Amino acid sequence: MHVINPSWIAIDWGTTNLRVWAMGPDNQVLDHKGSTDGMGSLEREGFEPALLRLVAPWLADDKTTPAVACGMVGARQGWIEAPYCAVPCAPIDATFCAAPVSDKRISVQIVPGLSQLDPADVMRGEETQIAGLMAALDITDGILCLPGTHTKWVAVESGIVNRFLTVMTGELFALLSKQSVLRHGMAQEGWDDAAFTLGLETALDNPAGLTANLFALRAEGLLKGLPPQSARARLSGLLMGIELSGTKTYWQKAAKVHLIGDGTLSRLYAKALAHRSVDVQIHDADRITLAGLCNAYQRYKDTAQ
Amino acid sequence: MHVINPSWIAIDWGTTNLRVWAMGPDNQVLDHKGSTDGMGSLEREGFEPALLRLVAPWLADDKTTPAVACGMVGARQGWIEAPYCAVPCAPIDATFCAAPVSDKRISVQIVPGLSQLDPADVMRGEETQIAGLMAALDITDGILCLPGTHTKWVAVESGIVNRFLTVMTGELFALLSKQSVLRHGMAQEGWDDAAFTLGLETALDNPAGLTANLFALRAEGLLKGLPPQSARARLSGLLMGIELSGTKTYWQKAAKVHLIGDGTLSRLYAKALAHRSVDVQIHDADRITLAGLCNAYQRYKDTAQ
Repeated sequence: MHVINPSWIAIDWGTTNLRVWAMGPDNQVLDHKGSTDGMGSLEREGFEPALLRLVAPWLADDKTTPAVACGMVGARQGWIEAPYCAVPCAPIDATFCAAPVSDKRISVQIVPGLSQLDPADVMRGEETQIAGLMAALDITDGILCLPGTHTKWVAVESGIVNRFLTVMTGELFALLSKQSVLRHGMAQEGWDDAAFTLGLETALDNPAGLTANLFALRAEGLLKGLPPQSARARLSGLLMGIELSGTKTYWQKAAKVHLIGDGTLSRLYAKALAHRSVDVQIHDADRITLAGLCNAYQRYKDTAQ
Repeated sequence: MHVINPSWIAIDWGTTNLRVWAMGPDNQVLDHKGSTDGMGSLEREGFEPALLRLVAPWLADDKTTPAVACGMVGARQGWIEAPYCAVPCAPIDATFCAAPVSDKRISVQIVPGLSQLDPADVMRGEETQIAGLMAALDITDGILCLPGTHTKWVAVESGIVNRFLTVMTGELFALLSKQSVLRHGMAQEGWDDAAFTLGLETALDNPAGLTANLFALRAEGLLKGLPPQSARARLSGLLMGIELSGTKTYWQKAAKVHLIGDGTLSRLYAKALAHRSVDVQIHDADRITLAGLCNAYQRYKDTAQ
């Protein structure tokens, strides 16, 4: 059996998933594992055992392997609360927060999230992706969009996160498509590009009409036999449209928007932004997250010395 | 025991409730009952038994008592589908739809709902309230707002429903306050008038910002200790604000808006409209519904003769 002996361990610990990478001395990936022990399903005392279930085979008895973690693991309901760093600041700037580990073979540093006072906003995990993108592309300026349940829009200038904005588009789509009256006559899969575009343009032209345009999906199903996959795509377009209408200060004058996230969702954002003639570049979220954790580990080493 | 011997029976049969009134020859209420046998909980063959459980004591063996019903009982998933009447039309205009009743002591006529092709929209039950308001006030023109899970805005001119618009404000509030990430840090009761007004003005000024302003409630709870009842009231204000922003063609030039609905919700709409200097008149929903069913019964008698 080949023994994995990492220099350090990278951890992405979100609400629903835990993912770990065994990293070599030159940041090469030696091994990778994951589990569904997300922060949302763990009590405080469950974090260390959940981590050890994955990484124990990588640990040596005669040394302490350092690990760096990002994500909701640092939330108030997580392993230990890592206080937010307030913008404007670098994406990874504040002192890391040491998690309370009893096993001597590993130490865990948690990357703090970012906060913004006005308008009030928070992120945990995305700050690491922002740092990862900047490191991977060797850039200090850019507009970023990180699609997800709660999509983040971020403006970075001279290496500093100046402002960011969280929109609930993904969660609204899930609630409306699965739990509202719109679930009748709505497919849970399938797509219709023209319907997506129609919804997008409708909401961009008239964001105030959103709540009425939502019900119209149900009415068109009853009166005109709107196909279920068209209803789904138009709902997505309507919600994307009001998001884009409300985030113009981010994308409207941007030379390019960097999209970091799940492939399908990122391509949807790319399509929507293309309708407004905005250039986009899609980045693989896993690669960027890992680049950010490498960046965080480097900072940790630099400050520890 | 006093025997109730109605001339006819009025039925308001919605998704969640069934309510019946025993009516005298001069439309006086002789008795009133209700149950939770709403349309949503009944199979097709369950409607007649559900009705008889309430009204059987009012029926005489030697005659057929007529009944008039409004609401979701006439939906595709209801007792029998009563085809929509397309606006522009009077609120109660089309031929009623006879329900398939096997008991010879009662006949049931269902009032058809209204439909609108562009923008697509539907209503079932509200048409009877519209007719009731016009009859009760002896008016032929007006702007109506019927607050509820799916609030309806209606423009009536010369006795004709010209256009209407359904907004999902109530359902969105329920989904977001109980099932989204916002449920953390949100009270399910309690209120804060200033927070409601802040949400209202925020969304009226910038409806496009809705999805971001929603997440800010969560962030302010984390960063600034936003009180749970304030979060609830501001959520309500944000959703009301985008509704009012999207329904300006109804209320902006109206001399008065007639509000028909649950007392608490109607007072909230009244407060919101007062912020925009719109005169309102609140009407008791039960009284208006019954007036509408009386109007419907009169039309039924007129056409049956």
